[in-house]
Amino acid sequence: MSRDRRLVVTNALLDGKTVSLTALDGKITAIGPEAAVDVNAGEMLDAGGGILCAPLVNGHTHAAMTLFRGHGDDLPLIRWLKEAIWPVEQRLEAEDVYWGTRLACLEMIRSGTIGFWDMYWLPAATARAVEDAGLRAVIGPPLFDPPGADLAERNRELESHLDELAGFGDRIGAAVAPHAIYTVGTASLEYAAGLAEDRGLPIHIHLSETREEVLDCVKTHGMRPAAYLDSLGMLTPQTNLAHGVWLEPEEMELISERGATVTTNPVANMKLAVGGVFPYPDAARAGVPMALGTDGAGSNNSLDLLSDLKTFALLQRHAASDAEAIPVAEAWATATGQRSGLIGRLGRSVTADSEPLTIGAPADFIVLDPAAPELALGNLSSALVYTAAGSVVKDTVVDGRILMKDREVEGSAEVLARVREQSSRLDPGGD
Amino acid sequence: MSRDRRLVVTNALLDGKTVSLTALDGKITAIGPEAAVDVNAGEMLDAGGGILCAPLVNGHTHAAMTLFRGHGDDLPLIRWLKEAIWPVEQRLEAEDVYWGTRLACLEMIRSGTIGFWDMYWLPAATARAVEDAGLRAVIGPPLFDPPGADLAERNRELESHLDELAGFGDRIGAAVAPHAIYTVGTASLEYAAGLAEDRGLPIHIHLSETREEVLDCVKTHGMRPAAYLDSLGMLTPQTNLAHGVWLEPEEMELISERGATVTTNPVANMKLAVGGVFPYPDAARAGVPMALGTDGAGSNNSLDLLSDLKTFALLQRHAASDAEAIPVAEAWATATGQRSGLIGRLGRSVTADSEPLTIGAPADFIVLDPAAPELALGNLSSALVYTAAGSVVKDTVVDGRILMKDREVEGSAEVLARVREQSSRLDPGGD
Repeated sequence: MSRDRRLVVTNALLDGKTVSLTALDGKITAIGPEAAVDVNAGEMLDAGGGILCAPLVNGHTHAAMTLFRGHGDDLPLIRWLKEAIWPVEQRLEAEDVYWGTRLACLEMIRSGTIGFWDMYWLPAATARAVEDAGLRAVIGPPLFDPPGADLAERNRELESHLDELAGFGDRIGAAVAPHAIYTVGTASLEYAAGLAEDRGLPIHIHLSETREEVLDCVKTHGMRPAAYLDSLGMLTPQTNLAHGVWLEPEEMELISERGATVTTNPVANMKLAVGGVFPYPDAARAGVPMALGTDGAGSNNSLDLLSDLKTFALLQRHAASDAEAIPVAEAWATATGQRSGLIGRLGRSVTADSEPLTIGAPADFIVLDPAAPELALGNLSSALVYTAAGSVVKDTVVDGRILMKDREVEGSAEVLARVREQSSRLDPGGD
Repeated sequence: MSRDRRLVVTNALLDGKTVSLTALDGKITAIGPEAAVDVNAGEMLDAGGGILCAPLVNGHTHAAMTLFRGHGDDLPLIRWLKEAIWPVEQRLEAEDVYWGTRLACLEMIRSGTIGFWDMYWLPAATARAVEDAGLRAVIGPPLFDPPGADLAERNRELESHLDELAGFGDRIGAAVAPHAIYTVGTASLEYAAGLAEDRGLPIHIHLSETREEVLDCVKTHGMRPAAYLDSLGMLTPQTNLAHGVWLEPEEMELISERGATVTTNPVANMKLAVGGVFPYPDAARAGVPMALGTDGAGSNNSLDLLSDLKTFALLQRHAASDAEAIPVAEAWATATGQRSGLIGRLGRSVTADSEPLTIGAPADFIVLDPAAPELALGNLSSALVYTAAGSVVKDTVVDGRILMKDREVEGSAEVLARVREQSSRLDPGGD
């Protein structure tokens, strides 16, 4: 690691006051009026009067699936998988995953997301891409029980993927990621729970995405999905449950007691037409830690979490027929990872009381465009939830490094060119 | 009008080929390979390899309500109106409406919308703003029956507003705009129908937005809203019905027979939590002309129709629990005004067979940013419906005039400064 990386941000707005900010080696060292901050040394970022803002964290995605964006958009789930996704996924190579993830990172940087929870094949390629792009990620090599597979061999492969991920820098974390309770058997789930505990890793799993999954679970295991996971020791403060569309109030109580997080993915749920809505009022009442995710670009198809934040709030208001269903402040905190000790930390070794934009916190933040018409009037949080999309983000800083400055991200043209090449190799007939 | 306004667009992509385009006095005169087009005279727009694309038309909004964006976002409809909107609206002056509308126009230009159907107070101020911004609009001075008002005087006022609107240029049209069947009595609706017929103007009205409106209509008039309007002669090919959330299949049949258009506003419906979803499958089955609207920024809060297009498609898939509920091509055509002879024409005197981007058609189009990561892979229509937001628009051209070039809109800084001034005058305590 290079030492003494200094960053100086000037001419930024925070709580209505003009401030400067300095960071050393990825941690914020000072924030205050220009006169009180040593602005003489370091890489300079002139915020141009833009607002300093907490960044967004994407709680669930499959980054490399940008490669499959727009494939079979009008197809229902099973035909989409069988006709559009699986045949192409079988030809995936590390370079595909690398450039698909670079495209995802580019879009996240451009929309103010500084890190994400990922689950996808060839995880070392994902990690390389995240490291090169400058973002943070918790990467979960997916665990499946394919029919007839040698599970011992599969476990060895998974462990070797986790070993590889451990060799990356501080911005990359690993997770144990059993795909779902309908694709992974009880023995493998128990193995996954043990592996996560042994290695001190989080668990990342899809849960209660479709009604069929719940009905099958009750039929096979005699209990609903949350209780089933709990019986296997998989519900802990280190567990990230993606979707949770069909969770019932008693399941919310159990998840809250165990301290696990539910990451809702409203856009993907609507796009794949799962038919239900994450029961936010029940989750909030039970005090469940929560986060917001885009899911993969194959089923969203965007990675702009600010757009999804609006859809999240709208869908909750719509589902409850109640304009008071989710206050602006709660929606905003969900998207920034501040409602889950697990998700927002993204594997960083920072204390839980390290709020964004405070001294000692990671130098991860965004600057909003002072010329964005969407932010010209009214309350800022409300504008971020209901008016803005990712394009209001002017600068993105992660770990004290400037990843976007005045909407320019270094290397974007190469990313677009390379991902187009990989995509035509993968799917020569695709449009 | 100035004569001989020539525009030359070079280096644009259309159907995968590099083309140039020329326009004279607001009409397209040539499109074709560079060599075949006289590119020697006129204002130049280098499209930089960006795709030439049909522009968007916003079928229903209240443009000046950008002034009330973020006021009382967490309030239910009635408290929102009584506490956040009406008290401030009573202080509205022409300069407020002018600058609020200029802000709306700026946001529409930046997101590829070239015209809109408006309904708001002080319509001449709206018209001035639209004319100065360079967009197109059909502007409806709202008609209400306030308790105790002198209706003859109110009618004289309305007619004088319509006279004023007739004095603007070709880009401004007028509409007769009775607010809704629950705020305008039968006599006034009949007057409005007659006025529209006498003056050859379209009708723009809110219909079937809430369930209460429908129940009250049945109770009071013994029929559902569409039949009631029809009984007053208000359902014609010149009628724009905003919302239509609670329309039943028989009403769709009737509307289709009469040739009226329904403009759906999915984001506003979700935000105000009306509880229902525009029954797109019924409307499509009946062949109802359709359009897409944002509604006002007070209840959306964005004016980015590309974002709303995604929400429109997602909400239909969700409501039907069917990923095939609305094909990409149908969604896209709704947002460009191509599914309604009335909406897309925006009062322009062009023949119905004048498709966008053909010779003789109005020189109204957008150029998409070739560097937008959201458009890098996959099918273009799908990317526009499900991936892109308005920021993928690089250039916007209306009536042969360049309103945005490389995302720069002339005069934006003044618009932001002036709208902030007007807003603090209107609502000194607002945040």
